Amino acid sequence: MTPELRRDPIIGRWVIIASGRRLRPSDFKPEAAASDDVSKCPFCPGREADTPAETFACGPARRKPGQPGWTLRVVGNKFPALDPAGRIHRHGVGMYDEMDGAGAHEVIIETPHHVRHIADMEDCEVEDIFRAYRHRMLAAAQDKRLQYALVFKNYGRAAGATLSHPHSQLIALPMVPIRVRQEMDGSKAYHDYKERCVFCDIIREERRFAERIVCEDGDFIAMEPYASRFQFETWILPKEHSGHYERISAGGIKNLARLMKTVMAKLRRATGGAPFNWMLHTMPLRDHENAHYHWHIELMPKTGTIAGFEWGSGCYINSLPPELAAKTLNET
Amino acid sequence: MTPELRRDPIIGRWVIIASGRRLRPSDFKPEAAASDDVSKCPFCPGREADTPAETFACGPARRKPGQPGWTLRVVGNKFPALDPAGRIHRHGVGMYDEMDGAGAHEVIIETPHHVRHIADMEDCEVEDIFRAYRHRMLAAAQDKRLQYALVFKNYGRAAGATLSHPHSQLIALPMVPIRVRQEMDGSKAYHDYKERCVFCDIIREERRFAERIVCEDGDFIAMEPYASRFQFETWILPKEHSGHYERISAGGIKNLARLMKTVMAKLRRATGGAPFNWMLHTMPLRDHENAHYHWHIELMPKTGTIAGFEWGSGCYINSLPPELAAKTLNET
Repeated sequence: MTPELRRDPIIGRWVIIASGRRLRPSDFKPEAAASDDVSKCPFCPGREADTPAETFACGPARRKPGQPGWTLRVVGNKFPALDPAGRIHRHGVGMYDEMDGAGAHEVIIETPHHVRHIADMEDCEVEDIFRAYRHRMLAAAQDKRLQYALVFKNYGRAAGATLSHPHSQLIALPMVPIRVRQEMDGSKAYHDYKERCVFCDIIREERRFAERIVCEDGDFIAMEPYASRFQFETWILPKEHSGHYERISAGGIKNLARLMKTVMAKLRRATGGAPFNWMLHTMPLRDHENAHYHWHIELMPKTGTIAGFEWGSGCYINSLPPELAAKTLNET
Repeated sequence: MTPELRRDPIIGRWVIIASGRRLRPSDFKPEAAASDDVSKCPFCPGREADTPAETFACGPARRKPGQPGWTLRVVGNKFPALDPAGRIHRHGVGMYDEMDGAGAHEVIIETPHHVRHIADMEDCEVEDIFRAYRHRMLAAAQDKRLQYALVFKNYGRAAGATLSHPHSQLIALPMVPIRVRQEMDGSKAYHDYKERCVFCDIIREERRFAERIVCEDGDFIAMEPYASRFQFETWILPKEHSGHYERISAGGIKNLARLMKTVMAKLRRATGGAPFNWMLHTMPLRDHENAHYHWHIELMPKTGTIAGFEWGSGCYINSLPPELAAKTLNET
């Protein structure tokens, strides 16, 4: 196949789809598997005292915070990227701009089991994860210093996890991060021109093309985006237009959890359990709903390395066309 | 130190400087060292037939293309991300936009030696690398299909190199990539407001602050940027305003080569020879010089992993303040 260039319709990023590059030789060995010392894991039950205070938990009603017995637990990050107590103070430093690093940094410990893949969890366990996301985003919205809450998950060392016990994180920021700003600007420009939501249009087009869909139900759709940056990059979107993830209904959480389990099982089979990241892109905290921004989850298995070309250009070279990725996911 | 948020003055990206996070525990082992089979290296002398045709070389005048004896050699990439012969044809696919993947993808084999660090090369060898960049960018500018030539170097597997023999790459694209577009837009907005080049202002500020400079001479300055994304991120800029790298003088190449050797020696000592990327950011091919865009090299040692937070936000968490990075580089 000759390479082709595809443009992401939201932010205008071009991706090179070049399947011939899968055949490149390499004189480096694959990465060694991660070792793991469970006896020191600070997220395992019985070591509750090793983490900062609990802000949310699931488990029996009689259990007290900080005690074992939980099935999911949210705690402050022991090494927070931002200072939970800080004041927001913007100031100049010569020509530069600085802000005190105030914000929230929490860890969602998804399960008491040290090793447990999303695809192997019970439905109700996965529901609790997405319920915890909602709860902590609503809590972050109460803090008027904060403008944005980003929820993400790093699975596996190559995806940036430093601890292997299954967990997600929430970082709440005193500004809207540039990546989300670009999506909001791009989807607004599309809406200004077309008077339609670009994400709603993508869902409609993908259902019409029917070659990049991974799975769907009445509420959600999982698909390989047209301009996929990575092999098996997968996006999950609500079918009905909605800007704020944290306004998801109880029924929505049930369906999202079930769909995510299916997606994760397919991805695990197709990528051999590759490390992955997922990121939840939603509206800034307390912003009014609008007609152009649509929350979604971006899921990126880590099957390659970001190199100088990607850093220098912001473009990506993907050797697996998303149509083929969807086919592979649906065959296995 | 409490974390602080710093804003990049060019594209407005925020970076969290959080030195406390260096203390985080990790239950993963460090990555295994790369193995290397020199007998199969397609870039070593004597295996010239294993690469596509030569487009530039340095070495004795009597040498014929494709023969050994070269000291530097530029060839087509055997697994090109873009099709050198393709036509540029933009078209729609439903709501999406596509372009045929036409462009150039070349490899600059920097030395006949299979193992040779920039810091250990002779001055004239490093000069040849920067001369080759200029030559190939000028050649790319002749091809009216192409709008941008990105030169970059991946050193070490974690930085995305698939072959360890020292080399750089040039990818010439039929569009201006999003990352460069953002820098051009940002520096234009700064110029519209201040009527000054933001890069020239940065150089002036850094010389005034004198705490983030790595080294400088009459023509160039190397510094840790104020909002460094990564530990020991280093930028190299010409002191005199200039948009097009490929218009560099012969004397400029000599000075740039000498400065890069110094920078690379300092970085190697400070990072223990960590993998790195460098990217040359310059104007789009054939664009007229303007008062706001200023070419530069971004050099990023690979000392950590990009994870969900960075992917989801476009922001970065850096645990080493650039002032401390500069101090470390200048002490060792």
